[in-house]
Amino acid sequence: MAPESELSEDAFEALEAVAEISLDAEDRLGRAGGLSYLDLLKRRGHGELAVPDAVVRPASPEEVQEVLRVCVEHDVAVVPFGGGTSVVGGVEALRGGKNAVIALDLARLDRLVSVDPVSRVAVLQAGLPAPDAEKLLGEHGFTLGHVPQSFERATIGGFAATRSAGQASSGYGRFEDMVEGVRVQTPAGEWRLGSAPASAAGPDLRQLVIGSEGLFGVITEVALRVRPKPENPCYEGFIVDGWQAGEALIRDLAQRQALADVTRLSDVDETEVAIALTGGRKADLLNRYVKLRGIKAPCLVIMGWEGRSRAATMAATHGHKLVRLGRAMGEAWRHGRFNGPRQRDALLDAGVCVETLETATHWSKLTQLRSAVRDALTESLGDPVVMCHISHAYETGASLYFTVLVPRDLHDPVAQWERAKTAACSAISGLGTITHHHAVGRDHAPYLPAEIGPLGIDVLRSVKSTLDPTGILNPGKLV
Amino acid sequence: MAPESELSEDAFEALEAVAEISLDAEDRLGRAGGLSYLDLLKRRGHGELAVPDAVVRPASPEEVQEVLRVCVEHDVAVVPFGGGTSVVGGVEALRGGKNAVIALDLARLDRLVSVDPVSRVAVLQAGLPAPDAEKLLGEHGFTLGHVPQSFERATIGGFAATRSAGQASSGYGRFEDMVEGVRVQTPAGEWRLGSAPASAAGPDLRQLVIGSEGLFGVITEVALRVRPKPENPCYEGFIVDGWQAGEALIRDLAQRQALADVTRLSDVDETEVAIALTGGRKADLLNRYVKLRGIKAPCLVIMGWEGRSRAATMAATHGHKLVRLGRAMGEAWRHGRFNGPRQRDALLDAGVCVETLETATHWSKLTQLRSAVRDALTESLGDPVVMCHISHAYETGASLYFTVLVPRDLHDPVAQWERAKTAACSAISGLGTITHHHAVGRDHAPYLPAEIGPLGIDVLRSVKSTLDPTGILNPGKLV
Repeated sequence: MAPESELSEDAFEALEAVAEISLDAEDRLGRAGGLSYLDLLKRRGHGELAVPDAVVRPASPEEVQEVLRVCVEHDVAVVPFGGGTSVVGGVEALRGGKNAVIALDLARLDRLVSVDPVSRVAVLQAGLPAPDAEKLLGEHGFTLGHVPQSFERATIGGFAATRSAGQASSGYGRFEDMVEGVRVQTPAGEWRLGSAPASAAGPDLRQLVIGSEGLFGVITEVALRVRPKPENPCYEGFIVDGWQAGEALIRDLAQRQALADVTRLSDVDETEVAIALTGGRKADLLNRYVKLRGIKAPCLVIMGWEGRSRAATMAATHGHKLVRLGRAMGEAWRHGRFNGPRQRDALLDAGVCVETLETATHWSKLTQLRSAVRDALTESLGDPVVMCHISHAYETGASLYFTVLVPRDLHDPVAQWERAKTAACSAISGLGTITHHHAVGRDHAPYLPAEIGPLGIDVLRSVKSTLDPTGILNPGKLV
Repeated sequence: MAPESELSEDAFEALEAVAEISLDAEDRLGRAGGLSYLDLLKRRGHGELAVPDAVVRPASPEEVQEVLRVCVEHDVAVVPFGGGTSVVGGVEALRGGKNAVIALDLARLDRLVSVDPVSRVAVLQAGLPAPDAEKLLGEHGFTLGHVPQSFERATIGGFAATRSAGQASSGYGRFEDMVEGVRVQTPAGEWRLGSAPASAAGPDLRQLVIGSEGLFGVITEVALRVRPKPENPCYEGFIVDGWQAGEALIRDLAQRQALADVTRLSDVDETEVAIALTGGRKADLLNRYVKLRGIKAPCLVIMGWEGRSRAATMAATHGHKLVRLGRAMGEAWRHGRFNGPRQRDALLDAGVCVETLETATHWSKLTQLRSAVRDALTESLGDPVVMCHISHAYETGASLYFTVLVPRDLHDPVAQWERAKTAACSAISGLGTITHHHAVGRDHAPYLPAEIGPLGIDVLRSVKSTLDPTGILNPGKLV
C-alpha cells in the first residue's frame, strides 16, 4: 500500500551515515499522518495518505542536528514525528516541493536528562511518551500533571510543539506554563533558551518555539517545572441545572481562583450519554435521583483534586445549586477518560462519522460561540448529535469542546466532514480562537491569518526563513 | 542646554499635519533619557544627554500610525515614550543614523477603552499612568494589582513593552500574565493580537510583542485581565534567622503555592537599614526584641495579602522559624515602598553613588548567584554597601534585587559605575537572566546574545525587519 520511496540513493546513504533509517513500508505507513477523522478515513481508503519516503530515528540531539544538515544538503523535507496523535494534519508527510520527505521519528530521544529537586525542574527528551515521562519522574517523586486525552501516546516534544493543554490545566497550567527552557535543533544550528523562571530580557522567545509545530526547528529537550506526585487524588461528579448555571459556576470558581485541578462541564446532550454509559440500572437510578432533586436540564460537572484544596473549591460553590453525585461518578470519568479516541474505530466500523473540535473565548462570548458552532454543525450535517463541554477554564474565559456524531455519508464521507469543519471554523473565526489545544497543522492553517493578522503570518514566515532558510521543515503546516 | 533641533522643516510640517508636536527645549529635555543612575549623572553634567529633536504627542492609535508613516517617509527615528522610568537606557533618544529622532510621547493615549465585567477584561490605552489606570478601573470595582516601584509614573504601554513585574507578582502575576491582547502600530501597519484567554493557534505572538521595547512597533492599547479591588489588604513583617532560612521559607511557600501576594526577603544588610529607618527608639526596641528571640542574623520578611488567604500562607510556614513583627512593620514597608527612587537625588547631592540591579535564577543556583554579584560589586567598587532582597518568587526560582551605595568617584563617576555594572553583569551572565524586570534597553543589550543565543538575536532582527523595515523604531536598544 505504501508507494515506492523516492529518497535518492545519495540522500539515503548520507542519512544512514548519521542516524538509523528505515525504508520499510510498514514503518513509513505508520508515520503517514495522525489521528483525525480524515486520517482514519484515509486509512480506510477514502483519500490519499501522504507516506514519508523514509523514517529516520536519530538517537540524540546531535544526531538530529546532523540529519537536518543532510536534509538541507539533499533538499529533503523533514516532518518531526512524536506520538503521531495530531488531529489537525500536523504530521502529514507533505513534500512541499522538496525532492523527498522523511518522518523524523523522535522515539529514541527518550531520556530523563536531569532532575533538579530543589528548583523542581526536570529536563526531558522530546521523544518521551507521556506515560514514560511520568514513570521516570515518579521515581524522583515528581509529576508533570499534564494529562491530555492523547496522554497514552503523545510525547513531550509534541506537547511543546503544539501548545498542548492537559485535562488538569486548571491546577497544573497549560504545557507552555510548565516550560522553563527548550533545546531546539534548527537548520541554522542549535538554539537553547531559558535561563530563569522569569525574565524581562526582551520578548519571551520560548513562547515562539512553543506552538511552532516543527516549522522552526526540532525540539529535542524541554526543561519543565515538576511538582510532587499528589497523594490522594479525589474526583467527584455533580449535576447543575442547565448550561448557563454550569457556566456561571465554573466562571465563579475560576475568578475566585478556586477551581479544582480538573474541572469539566458537560451540556445536556453529553450528560445524557455520560449517564447512559454508567450502564442500565445505575443510569436509571441516576436519572431518577437527578429528577427527584428538581433538575430539569441536567449538566454533569466533574471536578478532580490532585493537589489543590477540595475545601476551598467547595466553599466557593456557595450560592450555586449543585447536586452531588459522589466519587463513583468522578472515578468513572477518570477511568474512562482515554476511551474516546479508542472507541472511534468501532464507531467508524458502524458507519458513524465521529469527530471532535474545540475553541476558546472570553466568558462574555462563550454562549454565543457555543450556539454558533452548534448551529453550523447542525446545519451542515443535517441532524447530527452535537455534544459540548468546557474542559479548561480561566479567569477571563474558557474552552469549548464539541463531539459530533452523524451517520456517515456513504458516497463521499470526506466532503461531508470537510463541509461541517469549514462551517464550524467559519463560525468560530472572529468569536474565539480557531484552536484552544489541538494546534493548527494543515486543517486550521486557512483560519490563522484571521486570528493573528497578515502581519502575524509575515512575522512567522520571517522567523522561519531565519531558522530554516531552505524551508525543509514540516511544509504545508501552520502558515 | 538642549541642542538645536535637527528635524527638517519638511518633516516638521508633515508631523504637524498629523499630530501635536513641540520643539520646546524643556519638552525635549524632559524626554531625554530615563531614570538610571547614569541618566541622573548626565543631568548633572557627567556625560552627554541624547535629546530628541522634537516631542510628538499623538492623541489616538490612528495618529500614532500616521506619525510612523511620516517618520518612515522622512527617515526619522522614533523613541516611544511613556513614563520615562527606564533604568536601562530604554528611552534614550538615539538617532541610529537617521536624519533626526523624535520622542513619541504617548501621554494623550489615556483612555479606558472598555471594560468587560463578565470576562474581567479591560482595554487600556498605552499612555495611561498606572495610578490613573487604577483610578479608572476602580470606578468599575476592579484593579490590575500591578504595582512596580515605578508605579507613580510608569504607564500601561511601558509595562507591556518592558515585561514589567509588580511587587504583588506572586498574587497577580507578572504584567505579561495579565495581557489578553495588544494593539500595536508598526511601520508595516496595525497589528492586533489576542482572541481568547488561551490558544494553541501557533506561537504566542503576544509574548513577542511584550518585551519588544518599542523595536517592533508602538503598543497603543492593551487588553488586560482585571480583578475585583481587594477589601482588606493586610501587610505584616517577620524576621527569619539568616538568608538561607529565608530562602528556604520563600521557596517552600512558592512550591506549596501559598505565597502571599507580596513576598519579600531582605538580607541582613538591607534588614539593618529597614529597621534603622523605623526611627530611633522604635528601631532600638525592634533590634532588642529580635535579639531576645535568639535571632543572630535577622532577615526581614514582608508579606502582604491583597486577595489571597493569609491563613493558607501562615499554615504553610509550619516548620519554619518566624518571628512576627506585626502589621506596623508591614504597613511601614507598604507606605515607604515608592520612596527609593525619590531619595536618590538627595543621596546624589550628598556625594553618594546609588543604583540598583536585578536578576533571577532557579532556586538551586540562587545562593551562588547572590554571592557572585555581591563579590563582583564589592571587588569593583572597593567597599560598597550592597543590600539584596528577593521580591519575586516562583515555584522554580526567584529574583534577586541589589541596591548598591558607595562614595561617588569625584573624578569619573560614570566610569566608576560602568566598571561595577560590567562586573555585575558578567557575574550574572550564565548563572541567571540579565534582567528579571528592568528590561534590556541599551545597558543590557551587550549581554542579550549570551542569554538567547546568536539565533535568538537573528530571530529578533528578522521580526524587526518585517515590522520596521527601515529601522526607525527605538534604535540602539535590545539588539
